[in-house]
Formats: sequence, C-alpha cells, structure tokens
Amino acid sequence: MSFQSATNLSGAPGQWTAEVAEGWDIFGVTNGGYLMAIATRAMGRESNGRTLISANGTFINPATPGPVNVKVEELKEGRSLSTLVAVMSRNGMPLVHVTGVFADPDRPRHDAFLASTGPPELPDPENSVPVQPSQDAPLPPPFTGKIQLRVPPEDASIPLDSRGDLPRARGWFRLRGDEELDSHAVVLAADAFPPAIFYSSLGVGWTPTVDLAVQVRDPAPTGWLACEYRTRFIGGGLLEEDGEIWDQSGNLVALSRQLALVPR
Amino acid sequence: MSFQSATNLSGAPGQWTAEVAEGWDIFGVTNGGYLMAIATRAMGRESNGRTLISANGTFINPATPGPVNVKVEELKEGRSLSTLVAVMSRNGMPLVHVTGVFADPDRPRHDAFLASTGPPELPDPENSVPVQPSQDAPLPPPFTGKIQLRVPPEDASIPLDSRGDLPRARGWFRLRGDEELDSHAVVLAADAFPPAIFYSSLGVGWTPTVDLAVQVRDPAPTGWLACEYRTRFIGGGLLEEDGEIWDQSGNLVALSRQLALVPR
Repeated sequence: MSFQSATNLSGAPGQWTAEVAEGWDIFGVTNGGYLMAIATRAMGRESNGRTLISANGTFINPATPGPVNVKVEELKEGRSLSTLVAVMSRNGMPLVHVTGVFADPDRPRHDAFLASTGPPELPDPENSVPVQPSQDAPLPPPFTGKIQLRVPPEDASIPLDSRGDLPRARGWFRLRGDEELDSHAVVLAADAFPPAIFYSSLGVGWTPTVDLAVQVRDPAPTGWLACEYRTRFIGGGLLEEDGEIWDQSGNLVALSRQLALVPR
Repeated sequence: MSFQSATNLSGAPGQWTAEVAEGWDIFGVTNGGYLMAIATRAMGRESNGRTLISANGTFINPATPGPVNVKVEELKEGRSLSTLVAVMSRNGMPLVHVTGVFADPDRPRHDAFLASTGPPELPDPENSVPVQPSQDAPLPPPFTGKIQLRVPPEDASIPLDSRGDLPRARGWFRLRGDEELDSHAVVLAADAFPPAIFYSSLGVGWTPTVDLAVQVRDPAPTGWLACEYRTRFIGGGLLEEDGEIWDQSGNLVALSRQLALVPR
C-alpha cells in the first residue's frame, strides 16, 4: 500500500475520515509520524494550495488500525500564512492533536542558507543496510516494512553497546517503490527511525512520544533523505530527540524535535 | 507589576479571562512568551496539581494590552500525563493556540542527567550588563523593563557587526524583584531575549514568531537562569531558534525551539 493510499481522506472540509492502515505499527501501536501525516494531509486539503511549513503534534491516546475522524478547523488564513488545527479521534476518543502552519508553495526553498553543519556523514544508500521487519521479534517493527530505511552497517543491529558518545540514530529514508515525497511524507520521515536512545547504553524499550514538532523547509524533496536524530538531555523521566533531514544535494529538508518518555 | 499579577486569571474551568498588561511589548506587539504563559497558567488551573512539562504555542494574530478570553479544554487526564489545549482570543479573534502537557510535580527533576554540553559560558550576573528599555528608540523594547535581563558586556549593544559565527543570543533571566519562578515564568524566559539573528550580520528587524515549543524540565528553578539561543538554518524566509535554559547549579531548566519569519 502506498503512502498516498495509507493517508487517503474522505469527507469534506471540517470533518474528514481516514483509515489507519494495518502494519504501520511498533509494539502494536501505530506510528505517530504516520498519524500526524494523516492529520497534516487533512489540513492541507483546506489550506488553499499552501504547503505545510510547521506541524506540532501532541499524542493523546495510542492508536491502532481502523477508521478515524479528523476534525479540521482553520484558525486564520493570513496574508502569508494559514494556521489550522486538526484533532484525530475514534469513537469520540482523541488520539492526536496537530496544529499546522501553511505558506505559499512558491516561496524560495534554499535561499540565504546558513548552517552550522552540513548533512550527516553517511555511507551512500547503496552501501547502507536495509532495515527489515523481524519475523519473530518485536524489533525491527512491522512499520519498517512500510517504508525504506537504510542504516550504516555499524548501526545495523540494535541495541548497540554504549559507544561512549551521545545517543544517535541515523540513516536514509525513502517511501516504498520510490513513491514521490510530499510535506506529509517528510512528517512521517521525522518519526520513522528507532529512538536515538536505542543506540546507547540506555537500551531498548517502549519510548512513547509525548509531542513532535516538524519544521518542513522543503515540501517536495527528491531522492533519499539523510536523517540524523540525537538525544542530549535525559532527566525527570523525559528526553528530547532532535532531528535533521537533508536531501542528497545537501539541502535542509526539515528539522524535528520530540519529547518522549524514558523507557522504564 | 509582578509576573503573577500580569498573568492573573478570573473565571472558571473551561473559560478564563485575563488582562494583557501594558508595557510587555516589542514594536507595539505583546511578547509571545508572556501570552503563552497566561495560557499555560490557565491550563495549570485545570491540571489537578500537575505541572507543565511541554507547551506548544502557535501565534495566530498579534496581541496588544487589554482583556482576553482563554478557553481551556482537557483532552486527557491519563495515569501519568494530562494534555490540555488553550485558545486565547479577543472579541472572537484567536490570538494564540497552546497545547500543554502536565505531569506529577514530584517526579525527579535532575536524575540520569546527560548532556552534550553544560550551561553556556557566561560572566556572572554581577559582571553582566542589565538590558533596559530605551527611552527614545524602539529597542531595547518596553518589555525588557518588565523582567531582568543581563547580557555579557560584549553583547550589550545590538546590532553587532557580524562575528563570523552563528547567530547567538545569551545572558541571564530573572523576574523583577527576584519574584519566584514557576513553569509559566520559564515559558516567558524562553521568549525573553532578542532574536539570535539580531547578533549577526542579518541585523535587526521585526522577526515574528510562528510557533514556540518549550520543554520544561524544572518547574520551579531558583536564582538567575542562564539562557542561550542559537539560529542555525535560515532559508525560504524561515528560521529556527533553539534555546537552552539552565540554573546556576548547572541543571537544565528548559529547552525551547521556535520557528520565526526572517525580517524583510
């Protein structure tokens, strides 16, 4: 099933319905970036051609496959930006709350570019290792079969021993069948990798996302996306994970930040 | 006027009113962190004693002093987290939309601490320069008279010439009269400094915040707060600004990220 199909919407402005597809899950819970992508696509249907530049999602209840309602409200259509809010729910129970900011698609994407760092240093996709769902273990999760993820050979098996440096997940993202990317697929990419702390001595466990913010700088990137996610501060049972997503030409595609609960 | 007074609420659960105070403004527009703090305080009135761990604000229309309504809705009161949403409006026009996640206040604050960097290197508050509102120019803005900001002597006058490095704003934050800090004051601190790009060759101009996310790791810090804000990626008319807020004992108090429009 394509990403477009998995995020397909029915209904009308204000009240959409979608079908959370089978298999986009981790430990039996549907991937949060995928849910957010359904919500941002719903808002995009009401943005008058403007494209997503920022999405802030708050995860309220875990989701599983099946039908959902997506209620969309436009808070403002301004001169240059539109602000919308979407609430995904099932049988009246809220699952995800997402705010979306949209802007004209013809604004320049890569002007006045300034960066402290370039893209992450990764081996080419051809020299990276595809992540495939495990047939007999919970990880890698079924979700990884719905997308293409490739990681450096030295990151191919997790949990890794502590490397003595900061938790970091990294690798290449693409949709299956090299399906074209849009801004909603970029939101998906921002939550597609294992948590960075899986690659540390903290080990592997259920790491629920509290909220996820994605700044989309390029709403239509091409090719493989180079992704890197880092966690720097763990305390009080909380951790943040900051991500950068780049295209193969070295342009920034998106920034992400999430707040998650530390595995018990 | 104390911060507590400036964020005072009347009303009842679900529908609060507040008075946006005079003088908390920049170029005639009320500071966004201050508005968010009113909204998070309203949510906190309905969080059953849980304290703020994450606030995501989206700025919809500019605000000025005067009465506002703050509509609060609880999306979930879970076992460990509560999720609420607040919309501040005036005469039916939405100004700010904020989601808030709240957790038990007695969870550990500084356990299992991990950081790539410690607090920013700053001269002591006693050896830093107070930022005072200008009497005859728009900057520093009136807002700086409502709080205490102290910056390193070499950062005391902006715009600076380009330093050849990345845009960075930094210094100490405290409420006036050394008023006690709570999680809402931390939200205020996250938007209290001039934009980092003011300290770069990009210069000074109206830099409206699109959205602002604050992760509060310590809801009751004491003393001066050491703050540092950096912008790394400017493109497509957009920039992000990432902040870290620390206490004087070297504990992380908060992380912030905002998306803003690049000045014309």
